[in-house]
Amino acid sequence: MNVTLKEVAERAGVSRSTVSRTFTHGASVSDKTRRRVQKAAEDLGYSVNALASSLTTGRTKLIGLISNNFHNPIFLEVFDLFTRGLQDRGLRPLLVNLSNETDPANSVRMLRQYSVDGVIVASSTLPPSFAEAFKEARMPVVHSFGRWGSSPRIHVVGIDNAECGRMAARTLAARGYRRVAFLGGPESATSTQDRQKGFFDELAKHRGIAVSHSYAAAYSFDAGYAEMRRLLAEARPAEAYFCGDDVLSIGVLAALQEAELAVPHDVGIIGLNDMAMARWENINLTTIHQPIREIIISSIELVVATVDQPDRHPEARLFPCRIVERGTLRPLP
Amino acid sequence: MNVTLKEVAERAGVSRSTVSRTFTHGASVSDKTRRRVQKAAEDLGYSVNALASSLTTGRTKLIGLISNNFHNPIFLEVFDLFTRGLQDRGLRPLLVNLSNETDPANSVRMLRQYSVDGVIVASSTLPPSFAEAFKEARMPVVHSFGRWGSSPRIHVVGIDNAECGRMAARTLAARGYRRVAFLGGPESATSTQDRQKGFFDELAKHRGIAVSHSYAAAYSFDAGYAEMRRLLAEARPAEAYFCGDDVLSIGVLAALQEAELAVPHDVGIIGLNDMAMARWENINLTTIHQPIREIIISSIELVVATVDQPDRHPEARLFPCRIVERGTLRPLP
Repeated sequence: MNVTLKEVAERAGVSRSTVSRTFTHGASVSDKTRRRVQKAAEDLGYSVNALASSLTTGRTKLIGLISNNFHNPIFLEVFDLFTRGLQDRGLRPLLVNLSNETDPANSVRMLRQYSVDGVIVASSTLPPSFAEAFKEARMPVVHSFGRWGSSPRIHVVGIDNAECGRMAARTLAARGYRRVAFLGGPESATSTQDRQKGFFDELAKHRGIAVSHSYAAAYSFDAGYAEMRRLLAEARPAEAYFCGDDVLSIGVLAALQEAELAVPHDVGIIGLNDMAMARWENINLTTIHQPIREIIISSIELVVATVDQPDRHPEARLFPCRIVERGTLRPLP
Repeated sequence: MNVTLKEVAERAGVSRSTVSRTFTHGASVSDKTRRRVQKAAEDLGYSVNALASSLTTGRTKLIGLISNNFHNPIFLEVFDLFTRGLQDRGLRPLLVNLSNETDPANSVRMLRQYSVDGVIVASSTLPPSFAEAFKEARMPVVHSFGRWGSSPRIHVVGIDNAECGRMAARTLAARGYRRVAFLGGPESATSTQDRQKGFFDELAKHRGIAVSHSYAAAYSFDAGYAEMRRLLAEARPAEAYFCGDDVLSIGVLAALQEAELAVPHDVGIIGLNDMAMARWENINLTTIHQPIREIIISSIELVVATVDQPDRHPEARLFPCRIVERGTLRPLP
């Protein structure tokens, strides 16, 4: 059975409130007393119960991670980094599944019931109104993989998606592709909008490259596969595709394989994310590396800091991306 | 700002304890009063805070899911089912990452601090001692994907792994393979031990089939790839491999592709799990379907029931598996 705070107090010969202060971050207690209480707690196998501690501090130590896409393997990496990052800080990772949720007010209600100290919205397909609704409800919130602005209204941690679009364009142009296409994620996703804009802006500087675009219904294998099949039924394919992300790229590769088109001989593909699977020999995807680890660690640090300073100024934190060359684009001439 | 219980009480013209009883499952309050309180709560936008409610009920509504493998895409499906299943019941999904954890006592301490009402251990590689340690610490616990016995000491929800091994053996024998091998996950994993036993037992009934075995270091792409490369460096490959699970199979397929061996022409592969990715055209894996959805839903129901009845008798719940034919075994003769 659980050891109680009362038993620790008796063993240490101090009051219950002294025990409580010992285990409350920032509370005043002498070093000598702290050591005595810690010794008693260890002897008895007492562990600080988060529920008991939340009564003293008003904090639950729960941080929510909001996701709305469990069909994209990149999120396995996100969940791994998120849970370990919080555990290392003595915090508790709560997973919030907003697949199919369209109403920010519902989500605010749900998060209130969950009593989280803060929230990380890990999505580029949930509209910014979600993160903003959490902020309006006075929840500390960080939008990871969200759209940044030079005058941020909420904390955003991520990448410059327009710059990634420009990188993809320069990469395809340098390899001599003359008929290229953007095959995005959902048209409503800010990541797809910004990647497309950068891609088109950069290509406009290159003479003689024709560019088209279309959108998949989601960032998922099935959506990429379906969209590429639709394109192949309509017309001959472009020479190279910049796909909205890696899992879409894998769906596109499957549709090309089924149509007996060789990659990169007949068609070139470049993705975005560099998820673990992209380097698998069966996939071997040329892509743009998004620094997931740095983004998640920084998001945790920022949401924790905002729990302590709720009026902290909103900031945008951006991390650089880079091309990872593998087997799905033809080599430089 | 949050609406308080006091404000709801004032608006409804009742005491605070009446409001609290209204939102406590099973507490006594008249229908008329309940309706009045609910109306007041709705008018004010009051939502029952899990922290406040846990003070009344002694329950946190937190259910922990323990995982120790974030390199296996099957867990994305597990997390999706787990979070939605709990949310639908008004419970809160806490994710516990025990990658690299070897000491059950540490995990008990951690779960105590987390104040979960119950725990689902979703792993076949964590030794049974983990689930048993949670039970000894009087936490309601269900071991999903664990080893079952006819006299269970803890709740287990999963499949009959030995029977899956027999199914794999019968499938390979029927296709005329005469030199087959088991390429398992970690030798210490109960799932690998039981799958191997069933595979060998069944093959012993078939004359003239030679069988060998080896183990990968983990259920991961990298481990499957490394183990198959090691085998190929040593000797000519078997005619067909029963791999420990799907993600191992994909690693094995990559190593075979790299060695320019054609599947299923030169080597046959059968996996286990039937994760979403197994049907991707780039993978197209013949495998044994494990009913993940049924296992997770049943695990949630069982842990919730055990929170209510802590002395419930331990039980083993088993779900049937079936072969899913795709492109990695040669057809029946």
